[in-house]
Amino acid sequence: MSDNTKSRLIEIGAEIIHLKGFNHTGIKEILEAAQVPKGSFYHYFESKEDFGLQVIDYFVEYMAQVARGVLADHSVSPLERIRNLLTGFIELFKARGYGYGCPIGNLSQEMGDISPAFREKLKYALDSLASIYAEPLALAQEAGEIPRDLNIRDTARFIVSSWHGALIHMKAAKSPEPLENHLRFIFDHVLKRMES
Amino acid sequence: MSDNTKSRLIEIGAEIIHLKGFNHTGIKEILEAAQVPKGSFYHYFESKEDFGLQVIDYFVEYMAQVARGVLADHSVSPLERIRNLLTGFIELFKARGYGYGCPIGNLSQEMGDISPAFREKLKYALDSLASIYAEPLALAQEAGEIPRDLNIRDTARFIVSSWHGALIHMKAAKSPEPLENHLRFIFDHVLKRMES
Repeated sequence: MSDNTKSRLIEIGAEIIHLKGFNHTGIKEILEAAQVPKGSFYHYFESKEDFGLQVIDYFVEYMAQVARGVLADHSVSPLERIRNLLTGFIELFKARGYGYGCPIGNLSQEMGDISPAFREKLKYALDSLASIYAEPLALAQEAGEIPRDLNIRDTARFIVSSWHGALIHMKAAKSPEPLENHLRFIFDHVLKRMES
Repeated sequence: MSDNTKSRLIEIGAEIIHLKGFNHTGIKEILEAAQVPKGSFYHYFESKEDFGLQVIDYFVEYMAQVARGVLADHSVSPLERIRNLLTGFIELFKARGYGYGCPIGNLSQEMGDISPAFREKLKYALDSLASIYAEPLALAQEAGEIPRDLNIRDTARFIVSSWHGALIHMKAAKSPEPLENHLRFIFDHVLKRMES
């Protein structure tokens, strides 16, 4: 029961934080939504910050799991798997009215200047998101699908950081256009040899 | 006096909103910082939202002015002017401890899902930021510095949206690395013909 309650608090807290941000989310609100008695919060978490840090771990694990599912489809090439992952995310945001954005990107913006503990955790989270792309990028390079001189680590980081920017623009435009523009530039310019 | 007071409220409000976001900034705080008597706020602005929309206009005009200064340097090529603009912004963020980020990007993230009036204004603001790059990009294309088949409008939008993402990562990393990575990919992959 104890572990279940803790997981439920994290899952429900993650949903609320994704929608409203960390500062706007109250512990009381999470406990009520999870139907957990008041006072038990500090049995599971040292502080609201400690809770927030565990929510970030949850988000990272959740996204890595979604990605693993898509990237396991070896019926298509490594490069096509990356494309399927990103177009899958676009479908997901379509279903969510082109709102929300990436929780890790949102929290980096909201908490990056405020909390050193969040900052450390978010650095790790952003590295983890980049590492999702690193493996299929390396396979695509081995297979000759992308330029040989591309630095895998930097490319993975650029895909993630420019994706986070596209998500910000999506939220203002309430349209998939910024995400589709991101895909176009990543696949037509970064991951493809251009003719001279 | 009246116009001066209004400008002062917008300038000081912009500074506080850039640091803390819109929702966390109180009217009382702005009036105190500007040393303007309470009650006069609604003489100048219909509502806090109306004030926020005018602050966005102020940010856009401010950034366009900074950009015009850098882009007016015709002693270097159009492509070099774009590079100087972005490296100038990196210097600016260095001086600010790699914090803050772009106010337009921040507000798009914070308000994009919440207020339709902000959303409309932010769409216009993001278009305005892209249009800063459109002119030197077109000149660079005419001069043969960048590929002929590059769509200027899409490229300008991608530069701005991926820059906003790099700024989010900068806030978490407290380092120029994400901005430098952005520059590398924009100039080495998007704005340059790659050898096949």
